[in-house]
Amino acid sequence: MTAASATLDTLDTPCLLLDETRMTRNIERLNGLMARHGVQLRPHLKTPKSIEVARRVMASPQGPAAVSTLQEAEQFAAAGVTDLLYAVGVAPAKLDRVLALRGRGVNLTVVVDSIQAAQAVAERARQEGAGIPALIEIDCDGHRAGVQPGHTDQLLSIARVLHGAGCLQGVMTHAGESYGCRSLEAIADMAEQERLAAVTCADAIRADGLPCPVVSVGSTPTAHFARNLDGVTEVRAGVYVFFDLVMAGLGVCSVDDIAATVLTTVIGHQPDKGWILVDAGWMAMSRDRGTAKQPVDQLYGLVCDADGKVYPDLLLAETNQEQGIIKLRAGSGAVLPDLPLGTKLRIVPNHACATCAQHDAYEVLHSGSRDIVAHWERFRGW
Amino acid sequence: MTAASATLDTLDTPCLLLDETRMTRNIERLNGLMARHGVQLRPHLKTPKSIEVARRVMASPQGPAAVSTLQEAEQFAAAGVTDLLYAVGVAPAKLDRVLALRGRGVNLTVVVDSIQAAQAVAERARQEGAGIPALIEIDCDGHRAGVQPGHTDQLLSIARVLHGAGCLQGVMTHAGESYGCRSLEAIADMAEQERLAAVTCADAIRADGLPCPVVSVGSTPTAHFARNLDGVTEVRAGVYVFFDLVMAGLGVCSVDDIAATVLTTVIGHQPDKGWILVDAGWMAMSRDRGTAKQPVDQLYGLVCDADGKVYPDLLLAETNQEQGIIKLRAGSGAVLPDLPLGTKLRIVPNHACATCAQHDAYEVLHSGSRDIVAHWERFRGW
Repeated sequence: MTAASATLDTLDTPCLLLDETRMTRNIERLNGLMARHGVQLRPHLKTPKSIEVARRVMASPQGPAAVSTLQEAEQFAAAGVTDLLYAVGVAPAKLDRVLALRGRGVNLTVVVDSIQAAQAVAERARQEGAGIPALIEIDCDGHRAGVQPGHTDQLLSIARVLHGAGCLQGVMTHAGESYGCRSLEAIADMAEQERLAAVTCADAIRADGLPCPVVSVGSTPTAHFARNLDGVTEVRAGVYVFFDLVMAGLGVCSVDDIAATVLTTVIGHQPDKGWILVDAGWMAMSRDRGTAKQPVDQLYGLVCDADGKVYPDLLLAETNQEQGIIKLRAGSGAVLPDLPLGTKLRIVPNHACATCAQHDAYEVLHSGSRDIVAHWERFRGW
Repeated sequence: MTAASATLDTLDTPCLLLDETRMTRNIERLNGLMARHGVQLRPHLKTPKSIEVARRVMASPQGPAAVSTLQEAEQFAAAGVTDLLYAVGVAPAKLDRVLALRGRGVNLTVVVDSIQAAQAVAERARQEGAGIPALIEIDCDGHRAGVQPGHTDQLLSIARVLHGAGCLQGVMTHAGESYGCRSLEAIADMAEQERLAAVTCADAIRADGLPCPVVSVGSTPTAHFARNLDGVTEVRAGVYVFFDLVMAGLGVCSVDDIAATVLTTVIGHQPDKGWILVDAGWMAMSRDRGTAKQPVDQLYGLVCDADGKVYPDLLLAETNQEQGIIKLRAGSGAVLPDLPLGTKLRIVPNHACATCAQHDAYEVLHSGSRDIVAHWERFRGW
């Protein structure tokens, strides 16, 4: 049963729960921070992949927002979002779908980080007789894609190619390495590194006589702890809408802020081993083990009662496809709770983006209530 | 484009490719082995989750087959499969859906491993006035669920509860620890351990005067290397239909047997680092790192050209949500191939069950051809 008349007691398991009270608090927190900085937030919708969540996280029903796939762009565009950044380097073969969306009135911006990609975008723009807005990706931290900040010749070559076809919109960067920081101070330093890389590159483009109206930065950790955002025109962040154990491990949120959890049912016990078996395996949780590299490894997640209260040191320790093994943290002095067959539990996940992607819908409830107030569908694919 | 008129060149990426030539060879190999043993194969459909694949892997359109969720049972039942084992310990709250399927003529068998679960099944069977066939799970290797082979009192108590309500069908076990074996000899030993645990428990039930017609064992490794299957009535295996790098690392198959791969496109380069960026991230591959514990860690997968030829020592080394970083294996003397923007590649995954679950369909082709001959949908959920 997944109808809006359901409760925690009647839901089939495993399923994905969304605590809207917590989600709203998370949204308001970052909105407040961005308002204080005077910078526009462009929420990244790769985390929710749901129009219902998108409407609550965006500043207006039209956006702005960022997406990680053209499928997301198409789905959100169909629901009325018109200001979208496709924040992954665009493959030339994907420009047909980009142009189809732009032809339907969606202001979709693409990202490039090479002369070849810029030329492909510029060539299509000339063929179409209309610019395709593009941001140049800057590699602020060696994390993945982007022009190196010192490579000014390359940066300007790309900028000129884009500008020549009316496509140059600005620069963007993402401090993915902020996920590896070990203190809030380090996150704030990373935010400054992210800001400086983007602003320096924007200034170099402007010094060459070219326009650079957009300076886009962001990751959930840096968005929350940036000391200043001078020169930045927009901040992107995604996972903050739900948060997760990786973010809690970084100190960006507390476990009580985490809005998305997996509801599961006890299906067995191995008393000799101190194991409780549940019907949430890796299919329900994903294989993400993002806390494995953090000081406190949460294995496949923290175990809570059905109402969301965390059991001390109780972890989803191992997963098969459709079974999970719950046990106490190694070395814990806590007592294994008595959780009979059929008991419902919630698992707090490592990584909201990955866990939510395993589910087709959110069962929405409010903090402190067992009533499911809404069923919000997710989509997926490319 | 995902129509049957597509080719490797026109497919949008990332997407899931299925080499039907290899799949057919894999199916025929295990069918041949089981025929030699004279034992029925019950293929596990949790890997394909596709009726098109199911029809090719099952002995008849009606089955037999195993499933890991009731959603699978319902989907395959709707497509005409009538002999199904739900091979995960059943939660009492799921018996409604079990009975609904049985009421539609599906011979669905459940699994229990405790008195409590057996009582729940027996009670519902009495209420319905008809037995619910159940197998008792045996823990042959300490891997997850099941009655310990030495706990004969517990085994017989469960058997009596089930028999009293006309539910006792037999025993089942799964040697999940075979995935950790380091030689084919060790796998064959594990197969014998799996067989012996099941047969011994079946004999104990029969010695108590109770029936035990079904003795069900299996995992892909043990199914392929069992020396004998005396006393076993059926073997279950799933991932063999596609195989994957974990199975290749175990020596159960070769890389050239792996039928399911992910097609991806080059979207950028970081030449200073020897990185090639592609549009297959963890969303397309899953977060599964099953080879991490093996002697040769394949990271997120082996990289092939679009036609499936493996590049020496080229790995999908890191993944973000929608981006992957390809680089040479550490210490390799191989030369990074020149793969320009837009080049299509195939990635051979660690774990077929997990990677396929990230996709909604298979794009089917034959070995040596670039034509997509079919588009087979997958389903998911619970």
